[in-house]
Amino acid sequence: MQKKINKIGVLTSGGDAPGMNAAIRAVVRSCAYQEIACSGIYRGYQGLIENDIEDLDARSVRNIISRGGTFLKSARSREFQTKEGRQKAFTNLKNAGIDALIVIGGDGTFTGGLIFEKEFDFPVIGIPATIDNDINGTDFTIGYDTALNTVVDAIDKIRDTASSHNRLFLVEVMGRDAGAIALNSGIGAGAEEILIPEENNGIERLMESLKQSKKSGKTSSIIVVAEGDKSGKNIFELAEFIGESLEGYDIRVSVLGHIQRGGSPSCYDRVLASKLGVGAVDAILEGKRNIMIGINNQKVTSVPLETGIKGEHKIDKDLRRVASITSI
Amino acid sequence: MQKKINKIGVLTSGGDAPGMNAAIRAVVRSCAYQEIACSGIYRGYQGLIENDIEDLDARSVRNIISRGGTFLKSARSREFQTKEGRQKAFTNLKNAGIDALIVIGGDGTFTGGLIFEKEFDFPVIGIPATIDNDINGTDFTIGYDTALNTVVDAIDKIRDTASSHNRLFLVEVMGRDAGAIALNSGIGAGAEEILIPEENNGIERLMESLKQSKKSGKTSSIIVVAEGDKSGKNIFELAEFIGESLEGYDIRVSVLGHIQRGGSPSCYDRVLASKLGVGAVDAILEGKRNIMIGINNQKVTSVPLETGIKGEHKIDKDLRRVASITSI
Amino acid sequence: MQKKINKIGVLTSGGDAPGMNAAIRAVVRSCAYQEIACSGIYRGYQGLIENDIEDLDARSVRNIISRGGTFLKSARSREFQTKEGRQKAFTNLKNAGIDALIVIGGDGTFTGGLIFEKEFDFPVIGIPATIDNDINGTDFTIGYDTALNTVVDAIDKIRDTASSHNRLFLVEVMGRDAGAIALNSGIGAGAEEILIPEENNGIERLMESLKQSKKSGKTSSIIVVAEGDKSGKNIFELAEFIGESLEGYDIRVSVLGHIQRGGSPSCYDRVLASKLGVGAVDAILEGKRNIMIGINNQKVTSVPLETGIKGEHKIDKDLRRVASITSI
Amino acid sequence: MQKKINKIGVLTSGGDAPGMNAAIRAVVRSCAYQEIACSGIYRGYQGLIENDIEDLDARSVRNIISRGGTFLKSARSREFQTKEGRQKAFTNLKNAGIDALIVIGGDGTFTGGLIFEKEFDFPVIGIPATIDNDINGTDFTIGYDTALNTVVDAIDKIRDTASSHNRLFLVEVMGRDAGAIALNSGIGAGAEEILIPEENNGIERLMESLKQSKKSGKTSSIIVVAEGDKSGKNIFELAEFIGESLEGYDIRVSVLGHIQRGGSPSCYDRVLASKLGVGAVDAILEGKRNIMIGINNQKVTSVPLETGIKGEHKIDKDLRRVASITSI
Repeated sequence: MQKKINKIGVLTSGGDAPGMNAAIRAVVRSCAYQEIACSGIYRGYQGLIENDIEDLDARSVRNIISRGGTFLKSARSREFQTKEGRQKAFTNLKNAGIDALIVIGGDGTFTGGLIFEKEFDFPVIGIPATIDNDINGTDFTIGYDTALNTVVDAIDKIRDTASSHNRLFLVEVMGRDAGAIALNSGIGAGAEEILIPEENNGIERLMESLKQSKKSGKTSSIIVVAEGDKSGKNIFELAEFIGESLEGYDIRVSVLGHIQRGGSPSCYDRVLASKLGVGAVDAILEGKRNIMIGINNQKVTSVPLETGIKGEHKIDKDLRRVASITSI
Repeated sequence: MQKKINKIGVLTSGGDAPGMNAAIRAVVRSCAYQEIACSGIYRGYQGLIENDIEDLDARSVRNIISRGGTFLKSARSREFQTKEGRQKAFTNLKNAGIDALIVIGGDGTFTGGLIFEKEFDFPVIGIPATIDNDINGTDFTIGYDTALNTVVDAIDKIRDTASSHNRLFLVEVMGRDAGAIALNSGIGAGAEEILIPEENNGIERLMESLKQSKKSGKTSSIIVVAEGDKSGKNIFELAEFIGESLEGYDIRVSVLGHIQRGGSPSCYDRVLASKLGVGAVDAILEGKRNIMIGINNQKVTSVPLETGIKGEHKIDKDLRRVASITSI
Repeated sequence: MQKKINKIGVLTSGGDAPGMNAAIRAVVRSCAYQEIACSGIYRGYQGLIENDIEDLDARSVRNIISRGGTFLKSARSREFQTKEGRQKAFTNLKNAGIDALIVIGGDGTFTGGLIFEKEFDFPVIGIPATIDNDINGTDFTIGYDTALNTVVDAIDKIRDTASSHNRLFLVEVMGRDAGAIALNSGIGAGAEEILIPEENNGIERLMESLKQSKKSGKTSSIIVVAEGDKSGKNIFELAEFIGESLEGYDIRVSVLGHIQRGGSPSCYDRVLASKLGVGAVDAILEGKRNIMIGINNQKVTSVPLETGIKGEHKIDKDLRRVASITSI
Repeated sequence: MQKKINKIGVLTSGGDAPGMNAAIRAVVRSCAYQEIACSGIYRGYQGLIENDIEDLDARSVRNIISRGGTFLKSARSREFQTKEGRQKAFTNLKNAGIDALIVIGGDGTFTGGLIFEKEFDFPVIGIPATIDNDINGTDFTIGYDTALNTVVDAIDKIRDTASSHNRLFLVEVMGRDAGAIALNSGIGAGAEEILIPEENNGIERLMESLKQSKKSGKTSSIIVVAEGDKSGKNIFELAEFIGESLEGYDIRVSVLGHIQRGGSPSCYDRVLASKLGVGAVDAILEGKRNIMIGINNQKVTSVPLETGIKGEHKIDKDLRRVASITSI
């Protein structure tokens, strides 16, 4: 028989993503709505081990929906990777009277949660939040839409200079293993070329295409490069190579870096985070556990937490084709 | 047997929406990619009647993906509602050698296209672009996502003042018949109440809820009101009524108005417009006609053009519940 | 001989303006730097009367520099207009051990401060913060630069629609008595006409100019109208009048309203607020009182508090000419 | 006696800056207003040599005031550094009937203009446009205010992550020789430390200050570093040094790069550009030559073109103090 839920704990873990605050807010207010208590755990699993826990009510989360980052803060915890660390965490949860845990983050967060769930038979529910959109079992992760807008806004600015000077820019965007940000922001920013981790067309094809581009009358170009692209060169080496191979190109590099993680979340991310936060509390009250709440065809759904972890990144071929066609 | 397509015409019609330029660009470049010609028709059906047509190539649409509005301009045409007007339009299309027409807009645009298609047996393909997201047969319309971000950004600014002064603001957003903008931006902006055309809970429930809100410790409030809300009062009357009925409220009204239609499109709208533009040219080349290209569960699909017109706006009850819970 | 200053109180009053938080932060940190105590008074003079006072240290103001509004909140206080109310305020200040008061706001704020200063011989220092830039004795007020950017950004969006539809828009911006926002944002947004409170050229000149504009090939127009314009018509009446007098114009009205007060402050406003906040504490420690800290030719200066109140709004004729020339 | 001016040429040169389009627009419309002709020269001095010249009228510059970059494009020209190149340029100017030249750019642009002016006795007027604000003889250069806002907006985003993770970020901003961007954006973004080319306080002071910061309870930090800082280390070396010297710091580097040059200009930059563009045409018609138009205490003024070139960067000590106090 299912244990009655009196109090839910919530934490954010791993890299921060815009919309995490909106998700926390939805969890906290959903608890208030369901008339159960809610505790915020600071600094992810590390704060749980260190008993950095605080009761939250509906008013605790006022005016945070518009803010980037996470007011519960995030951290990576090596101690949680040890049995001893997890034991401390469990003890603290029990002492705080917490009956279920909602963990907001990416696959590292879920891996930790899964081990914990199995070890202590303690209900854990995951909410996917990472700008990379690399979590299986959900169409979108919290923070991804905002990151795309940030990247496109940055490349729009770079385009001003590229157009004014007839230059070629290589712009590095996030994505070690997944090209979702590069591919979508590349289409959105009107990039001439997009290099992603999921494919390796060889540097010769790139050079061919750049030559073609120039012939067709393009006077400036933007190449979007995901961090994990498969060219075998880092972005500065790539710039040098292109510069040596093609004449008449004035080439520059811009690494967008950490601005991609921050900023006020987009409406989409705020609504998504609100849906998933409410859905997570609903799921707990329905007796579900060991699941990840996700969005599929605009409906809130749940999948086993394992699903969220075992990502396999496949490229959307239709989207790849759209990129090729619209950059002609 | 299907006639060979040598040239496609494209126009924008009805209210402008951010991303229309991106859609035009995708149509034009898709034509270039498929090695068929493309003509831009200025000022919608009116320009077609007045033969305001220009050939476009891949370079004609450079640097427009980031711009709001439509460089082909839009207009409403009474003349196109007459048989005579449409006959002129048809003659101009024939003379220009145009074999199929892509119309970018909302249901008024599609209605015109449908009549034209039937009358002259001329292939017409619709692309849904309107900030209201009120078109059947597609999950999203071009411009909607951008409008949501614009509204949320505006309400964030108003929230600064509301919080600083402990005030109640009524904010009117677009939506004569559809509450999609109000409901989503209301959740995204953390509005305390949201009034939409699809439901009428009575003004008593609103007053009750506002009293409850104040009791629960809220010191400022935002009420998002869709243009077509069912309170039976306009927003200024509503403000007066609330002011008279509740004590201690300093009430203000803000009508967001036309800023909601403009602005640089979000990444989502740029990518959606690119997909639909490419999809429209693909559909024409596959011999399809009399259809609307849409997005369903992230895939480009097509439905009969009629489908796009006969909208029936149903409220998303799950989303309504999320709004109620997160504004607690 | 000057009394030693041990503690400074700070409050915000009147309409909120972006950068007020940055000014409070600078005051608080300047006190910490000078090793004197600092108290924040909530809700302006009303909070002072109600003894809503809290000690602030350098960490109390972390992460607020980027936020619009004022975390100390603002209010208008009728009670402070009475001798009795001011007596309560004075008593609370004495009990809190506060030796000098920094008031951040506009001329209403300074008027209250001036009366208080005279009545109780209590040091009061003003910092000008209002989006209207209508305070004498300072080149700029805190919040003005941000408001200009907000207005220009909004009109850029409206321009998208105006251009797409060949429309004429009347856009109302703040400014009951001062045309600074209208004139500068009008130039910045490329408005065709600008109507301000400081001049009345008659509606005939406007009509003449609009006709001229159309003849010169302009297909869309933006008219920026300050709230206090001297046309003798409100903006909706004005729109109707123009619509009746000129043919072929599709005319729309947009009232920007409260979005103009909010938003994250611009860099200029943050730096200005930081300078003035530091300058106010410096002035108190130098024994000054009954002054307003302002910016003149980029240097922090001080003028008698009276100066800040007696505004006389003169139009910058050179700027007026720039507006006329660049809208040709 | 002064030669009558029938036609003015305008070009942009050197690095692009937001507001250049607004300046071109003001020049073109001012010529229309004064009823003289105007020619736009593409790609700076190089385009002048290659006779890439086009007549512009008031309508040619519509809807460009809001756009970053320069539609006349910019380039650096080695050929203009040769007597032969300049001779070609002069010949093209004469053939085009251009009587005076307005050059928009920075000190490299002015140096070229000055040589040309002396060599051919041809009127040249400079308008200062560069994001670095490093031109003598004007309080502000076009583009500087926009760049400050871009930098502050980027650091606000980075702050979200820094706060969420208790991290220290080193953020590199533009400024090889001048610390204006670093100092002002550093204050505006609430940076804990600011390193600028104009001073070298030694890395020991920095380490001391960081230790102090941590003791005072700061859990995250932003250090703004101008490109030309005097630490003797590049920003990655600096990060490594700090990481090795201080315990418990998780340190990251972000190089903002080219986004700083782009973007829609701020209202201030648009108005400044409008004033200076009008002022340049006025000056030519008054018979002035060999000058730079600048802004001093908000008035349009002119100084000898030489003045604009011989920059000597002095740090604003008052502002330095404000930075130290507000980051306490």
